[in-house]
Amino acid sequence: MQARRYLYRGRILNLALEGNFEIVEHDPAVAVLAEREGRLLFVRQHRPAVGTSTLEIPAGLIHRGETPLEAAQRELAEEAQMGGELEFLNSFYVSPGFCDEKVYLFRARNLRPASGLPDPDEEIAVEWHEPLAVYRAARAGEVQISAPALAGILFYLLEVASIPL
Amino acid sequence: MQARRYLYRGRILNLALEGNFEIVEHDPAVAVLAEREGRLLFVRQHRPAVGTSTLEIPAGLIHRGETPLEAAQRELAEEAQMGGELEFLNSFYVSPGFCDEKVYLFRARNLRPASGLPDPDEEIAVEWHEPLAVYRAARAGEVQISAPALAGILFYLLEVASIPL
Repeated sequence: MQARRYLYRGRILNLALEGNFEIVEHDPAVAVLAEREGRLLFVRQHRPAVGTSTLEIPAGLIHRGETPLEAAQRELAEEAQMGGELEFLNSFYVSPGFCDEKVYLFRARNLRPASGLPDPDEEIAVEWHEPLAVYRAARAGEVQISAPALAGILFYLLEVASIPL
Repeated sequence: MQARRYLYRGRILNLALEGNFEIVEHDPAVAVLAEREGRLLFVRQHRPAVGTSTLEIPAGLIHRGETPLEAAQRELAEEAQMGGELEFLNSFYVSPGFCDEKVYLFRARNLRPASGLPDPDEEIAVEWHEPLAVYRAARAGEVQISAPALAGILFYLLEVASIPL
């Protein structure tokens, strides 16, 4: 095991070297799959890191002291002003070759309005779309989606019907 | 649009600040979903970034001058010593809140042996597993999977059968 030498310690991430490996330490995150009448809840926002707007599902970092479930409930309220009964689906590393960010994916049932405000540095549009339409648009390069959004779409299609893509 | 101020320029990533945002620039990547007789091809490797071994699908960075398809064929050969007919499935950003890494997901059909060697800094074990078993093990926290692996599992379950999870 080689020592980890830190080059930067920041707000949401640290950068370090471990031997030849460039490593980013990043807080864990949550994402929420919410469905209603055949449509999935998406959030559209401009992402400076990718220089364009993306179509994602509600997601965000787990705050210190929160459980993943609590973070998922908070993000669903903040980004979409909704609440519901949340069920843990699965977790995954977004890109374990260089980064330790882990995402906990939840499914929300029995949606209801809830109060919450997005982070002040986020401008978020809430949109409901048919999952298959978003899948096809992403495949055609017409929209940019995130890993949790893709997982949410596939999970939804799998749960609801075996739809040929 | 704010200027991007670079803090680090490295081998596979750059770190920059853009206003309040900590941004990692990262090369794009590919991942390959390969199936045979009800099992998916996984690769298990130790990942220094997450401090543990992960169960992923063949994946890696796109080299300069390669198309995503060429990179997918190369990674499948290097990590699993296999070739096949590759079909583009979809692309996604792994974590667009801070990083521009985009993954191009392919499906391989008509698998055949091919020659290739893993990167010298990678120790990779090739394993074939039933997708649903891996999904359940990941959900139970018994294995750590990557975003492309989750997408691959869900896609496979969707294509083959609508299996209740």
